[in-house]
Amino acid sequence: MSHFQEQLEKYAELAVKVGVNIQTGQTLFINTALNSVEFIRLIVKKAYEAGAKNVIVNWNDDIVSRLKYDLAPDEVFHEFPKWRAKEMEELAEQGAAFMSVVSSSPDLLKGVDPQRIANFQKAAGTALHKYRQYIQSDKISWTVIAAPSADWAKKVFPDAPADEQIDKLWEAIFQATRADQEDPIAAWKKHDQSLHEKVDYLNKKRYKQLHYKAPGTDLTIELPEGHLWVGAGSTNEKGDEFMANMPTEEVFTVPHKLGVNGVVTNTKPLSYGGNIIDGFTLTFEKGRIVDVKAKEGEEILKGLIETDEGSHYLGEVALVPFSSPISQSNILFYNTLFDENASNHIAIGSAYAFCLEGGKNMSQAELEAKGLNTSITHVDFMIGSDQMDIDGITESGKREPVFRNGEWAF
Amino acid sequence: MSHFQEQLEKYAELAVKVGVNIQTGQTLFINTALNSVEFIRLIVKKAYEAGAKNVIVNWNDDIVSRLKYDLAPDEVFHEFPKWRAKEMEELAEQGAAFMSVVSSSPDLLKGVDPQRIANFQKAAGTALHKYRQYIQSDKISWTVIAAPSADWAKKVFPDAPADEQIDKLWEAIFQATRADQEDPIAAWKKHDQSLHEKVDYLNKKRYKQLHYKAPGTDLTIELPEGHLWVGAGSTNEKGDEFMANMPTEEVFTVPHKLGVNGVVTNTKPLSYGGNIIDGFTLTFEKGRIVDVKAKEGEEILKGLIETDEGSHYLGEVALVPFSSPISQSNILFYNTLFDENASNHIAIGSAYAFCLEGGKNMSQAELEAKGLNTSITHVDFMIGSDQMDIDGITESGKREPVFRNGEWAF
Ligand SMILES: [Zn+2]
Ligand SMILES: [Zn+2]
Ligand SMILES: [Zn+2]
Ligand SMILES: [Zn+2]
Repeated sequence: MSHFQEQLEKYAELAVKVGVNIQTGQTLFINTALNSVEFIRLIVKKAYEAGAKNVIVNWNDDIVSRLKYDLAPDEVFHEFPKWRAKEMEELAEQGAAFMSVVSSSPDLLKGVDPQRIANFQKAAGTALHKYRQYIQSDKISWTVIAAPSADWAKKVFPDAPADEQIDKLWEAIFQATRADQEDPIAAWKKHDQSLHEKVDYLNKKRYKQLHYKAPGTDLTIELPEGHLWVGAGSTNEKGDEFMANMPTEEVFTVPHKLGVNGVVTNTKPLSYGGNIIDGFTLTFEKGRIVDVKAKEGEEILKGLIETDEGSHYLGEVALVPFSSPISQSNILFYNTLFDENASNHIAIGSAYAFCLEGGKNMSQAELEAKGLNTSITHVDFMIGSDQMDIDGITESGKREPVFRNGEWAF
Repeated sequence: MSHFQEQLEKYAELAVKVGVNIQTGQTLFINTALNSVEFIRLIVKKAYEAGAKNVIVNWNDDIVSRLKYDLAPDEVFHEFPKWRAKEMEELAEQGAAFMSVVSSSPDLLKGVDPQRIANFQKAAGTALHKYRQYIQSDKISWTVIAAPSADWAKKVFPDAPADEQIDKLWEAIFQATRADQEDPIAAWKKHDQSLHEKVDYLNKKRYKQLHYKAPGTDLTIELPEGHLWVGAGSTNEKGDEFMANMPTEEVFTVPHKLGVNGVVTNTKPLSYGGNIIDGFTLTFEKGRIVDVKAKEGEEILKGLIETDEGSHYLGEVALVPFSSPISQSNILFYNTLFDENASNHIAIGSAYAFCLEGGKNMSQAELEAKGLNTSITHVDFMIGSDQMDIDGITESGKREPVFRNGEWAF
């Protein structure tokens, strides 16, 4: 077996055993593009070998999607295949596991009418609302991993020879996901523990507010009563552990929807629906985004914020040291799954119910009452840098260092 | 544009304009393997350009299907994705067009437990029952075309160099579908007319019985009252023409379910569910298959016949001259879509309602009463050769030549 094939097998095994942690008799649903067919087949094989009852692969082709955006009539972007939504919903009810293998080029939808994109995101969000509740409350096991496409590899390594770009991206993915290590499963166990130590510290402190200071950023974020910091591995309703994102370097919680004030500036480009948004500043008053400026993609960003009422508010606060391996690789992946792990970030849109004590069993209305945001969307963007300081402010008003110069301060 | 690319575009255009004959605002549903991605993208593009509202591509991977047969537990083969069935059913109700692009290797399922295959065929047949009624009564436009896979091309051209096999199969497909001609759409119009002349002759004659004589074959097939010969283009409920199979060289009708007597021997291998069945003889008494012998794949053939009650009876009688272009190409395609057009054939299983006067508006029970067979399956097999004579027997008992030495005798 070649070295590449060996790492590919380890990565497929990680996806199945650590990512969704497939259980005997369980169904696995995989969402993927056509880009890495051999890798997907390896995942399917390993899932059956690990006891899966059925593996359903939902293949999508980037070019077919793009042809639709370019050539179909407007009306069709208000529709999302309801059977697909029903399928995912019923499989979630039955306790299936869900894997997404992302590989799209960030430029896939460049030049597409932003209204078409916004309409389709909205239609998808509405159709998949119930399914996404299963995911966002961690009732079921799910994971998001990545595999290269030619266009994505070209975007990330534009200066490499054309025939080496995909290999270089695979290498970067193997490294970021620890698939290049001797025993990747053991490495993930250790990594999981170290993130959980940060989580435990923050959950004891129960800061009332976080105050962010950096060039272009002066932002105060209130944390709701009963907020929970979370990181690395999650546990589903049945008690099975899973890893929702691979890689993951963040510890995160929910902001109080109405308690965000000040200004924040992004530090890495945001790739959204295939478009790049960059050089942007958001101004918050009582949680709501009241001003938006962007050097690139301002219309797309405004469209995102106008998705629904909830997309005017934040739903996630995440901490990642500037020295994280992905930050140190100095690779800009143009993909949130990787780039969010290089930097402190926050998210526009829905808040995770599992980041609140008892939240998994609360209704949407109860969660809102506690300050958790609801939206059909959830989009992370990067705000961290080596110039970022963060203070935690306790109930009694005491300031304690959480981050200094982009690194953990405890 | 290369010569190959030119023919590929013509073929995609044929599929869209002659095959499903897409109408403005219509949805096109495409079932395909992952083998000919570029060709599928061309079809999608041409469908949108011809006015399609939406093109849904349902990709399936042969290797993923095979992994399931090899590694999944028994129980899963009794299940067919009900959402997929629901989707196709509802799209059919809404007047969508359906295209299947077949490409599987005939050896795909070699060595798989025949019980698993039979169970899954049965589950699929049951789940897709309503959808198949739309197809079999020609209420909606549908077409079956082909594209090469590497394994299929290797099977058809085992002696060609590995890097030429796919090109050779494309060439054979272009030739069989007239995509290699200057104006393929005009060529299909002409071909359609010439088949319709045979159809009109037979529909005037209204033979009571056909009597087949050939080595290993002495078979009498009664034709039901009101039977209709059909060939080449069909017309859907709305009056739009479409071409259900490309290529197609046959004119065909329905047998009387209970009026088949004698012995028939196949003349070309039957590829069924990825298995080869060959050298077989079926004996009929009052329509029912009462004896089955096969040199290869006898268990698979018996499994097919045991699918349900209706799979013990015939559902189609089709006439194809031995001099048909596909027969003359001397290529054995190991694929019914092509091989049936090289030879007279009959089909085990369900009968087409549109081959009976008023049949499209009859209930299943009414069709049965007229002698039309019902089954969840429909499998053609080849019985023609240059030694086959067929007589038509009129109401008054007069014998008239229909075929002599494998050729039309009128
Ligand atoms: Zn995050
Ligand atoms: Zn997030
Ligand atoms: Zn036929
Ligand atoms: Zn047939």
